[in-house]
Amino acid sequence: MKVNQQQYRTVWFENSTLFLIEQNSLPFDFKIHESIDYRKTAEAIKTMLVRGAGAIGATAGFAMAQAFLEAKNTNLTSTFEEFVVKAREEIEASRPTAQNLFYATKRVFEAAIKMQSADLAISEAQAIADEDADFCRRIGEHGNKLITDGMGIATHCNAGWLAFVDYGSALSPIYEAHRKGKNIFVYVDETRPRGQGAKLTAWELQNENVPHLIIPDNATAYFMAQGKINLMLVGSDRIARNGDVANKIGTLEKAIIAKELGVPFYVAAPSSTIDWECSTGADIPIEERSQDEVLYQTGIDNEGIMRKIRVSAPFSQAANPAFDVTPAKYISGIITEKGIIRPNKSGVLEF
Amino acid sequence: MKVNQQQYRTVWFENSTLFLIEQNSLPFDFKIHESIDYRKTAEAIKTMLVRGAGAIGATAGFAMAQAFLEAKNTNLTSTFEEFVVKAREEIEASRPTAQNLFYATKRVFEAAIKMQSADLAISEAQAIADEDADFCRRIGEHGNKLITDGMGIATHCNAGWLAFVDYGSALSPIYEAHRKGKNIFVYVDETRPRGQGAKLTAWELQNENVPHLIIPDNATAYFMAQGKINLMLVGSDRIARNGDVANKIGTLEKAIIAKELGVPFYVAAPSSTIDWECSTGADIPIEERSQDEVLYQTGIDNEGIMRKIRVSAPFSQAANPAFDVTPAKYISGIITEKGIIRPNKSGVLEF
Repeated sequence: MKVNQQQYRTVWFENSTLFLIEQNSLPFDFKIHESIDYRKTAEAIKTMLVRGAGAIGATAGFAMAQAFLEAKNTNLTSTFEEFVVKAREEIEASRPTAQNLFYATKRVFEAAIKMQSADLAISEAQAIADEDADFCRRIGEHGNKLITDGMGIATHCNAGWLAFVDYGSALSPIYEAHRKGKNIFVYVDETRPRGQGAKLTAWELQNENVPHLIIPDNATAYFMAQGKINLMLVGSDRIARNGDVANKIGTLEKAIIAKELGVPFYVAAPSSTIDWECSTGADIPIEERSQDEVLYQTGIDNEGIMRKIRVSAPFSQAANPAFDVTPAKYISGIITEKGIIRPNKSGVLEF
Repeated sequence: MKVNQQQYRTVWFENSTLFLIEQNSLPFDFKIHESIDYRKTAEAIKTMLVRGAGAIGATAGFAMAQAFLEAKNTNLTSTFEEFVVKAREEIEASRPTAQNLFYATKRVFEAAIKMQSADLAISEAQAIADEDADFCRRIGEHGNKLITDGMGIATHCNAGWLAFVDYGSALSPIYEAHRKGKNIFVYVDETRPRGQGAKLTAWELQNENVPHLIIPDNATAYFMAQGKINLMLVGSDRIARNGDVANKIGTLEKAIIAKELGVPFYVAAPSSTIDWECSTGADIPIEERSQDEVLYQTGIDNEGIMRKIRVSAPFSQAANPAFDVTPAKYISGIITEKGIIRPNKSGVLEF
């Protein structure tokens, strides 16, 4: 995707070095992080220099490839396999709740351990990254069919290319429609408390020249009632077998108002987001994050200095559930790399 | 109401001085502003040292009383009536969209101009303030009937005592229930973009020792779906003849999710909020405020210094509608000083 008129991926690998777009300095500063070994790459995952399911998965795959390179090149006190197994454990400890991370480390390990081949590890890691980009591109093509000229489209949180290797999930149909010359306008929920909409989605759209406005999360129903929002697209962190969807806090609220106000509400996610272990949304655990994300805000002052300020009554406390579960009945459809499926048991079972 | 264990009103008058709780330094600093003449009082309205329909009305009434005092005491170059008429114009220019302001200046003027009596002006201004407090107290008594022991109650924006002379509208039933010893818990929507919930409502509840948590506006549906919110109470800026309600942006969204998730949703407002000129909510104009309220946030850093920071992508713009209109069909009832009315034409006509 484009940043400052140049093509980028979130994560890429050249020789033995991994390159990452530093996500925690965005949107105020665009920096590329270079990581020369698996330890530094695992550290980048741990400190959230990289975030988002697809981007984390690709990064973890490349970290494994780096471990294979080191196992081959270093004057080792342990065996090749011992070194790689230990490296895998360290990488997996960097973000133990990220499903895609484990998928990627396992896949690279199994592809290359028998032959003790760094080349095989690198090509498997590259395949994971390419697959992620390709799936997101196809989500864009399928989702684009829902978009007609002149549409206003709302989105929540950041399910853009920053969360994947390229294209994104919920934003991919928007980019595809824009590339095809459709005249669209995006209403970007700021997505409190962490502001991924105002900070990341708006930054992506700006770089791709897609017309948009940031709106307070409180204003989505207002613009829907005015007929200015004709479609809503969101991503997903996990989808249960019955089509219930876990996503960023606020998604449930948006899905309910969209249904009531007659706005089609679609979830876009690669089919790997479906968790076959979860029969309904009730099985999905909801992470409670630090109350400081609600009580404080971070941003830059007029001199460009990053500051953290309190935006709430000094002695009050806050609740901060990170996700909510949207029952399938509020969802118009799920856009995956294979097509648009119905959000119910038989629809999900087609995968 | 209580601040630091002492009883206060938002606005009060002693001899010829008006005392105001400075609202724009809250919740970080509690200061009392003293205004010795009508010009200074008008200035306090203009600079939003005082905000909220009831509080502005009472302040404007006392400003008129100060004008009568000056007209009597000063060695005038104009006649008594000329002086008061000019003062009235200045006061009314301080916040030309505030309905209660005009109501108060007119009422004090008409009560005292014939007799050219400062005493009559003061007692009329005091009557306006007392009436505001009394109406809010009665809203609390009527609304308290909806509250049972153990309830979780959500609220949006600040319709507390800071917006009136005392008690508040939406918060008045909560205070009454708390005083009566009912065990209640309040979920405070932070109310982006200006954060009146996180800043003012939480501060009020803290001072009254009402148990509460600030939540992101995105989390209200989550807590409703969990069964933790059993009632929602909001205020109103204007009510149309058919029961449609204009209130802080986000109210429409909350009313829709409350209805869908089976949570009773009540609007609390003195009957003066009914605008007989508006037949439906479509007649109510919506103010579009500065986009900077969305793009930037204001608060204190860890040294207590007030700072303004950018919390959004640097080149993106924002929309900032200040209010929305909630159709009567989503509202369970309207709590006024006279009782709880049905939100429809015949209900409203009972007033």
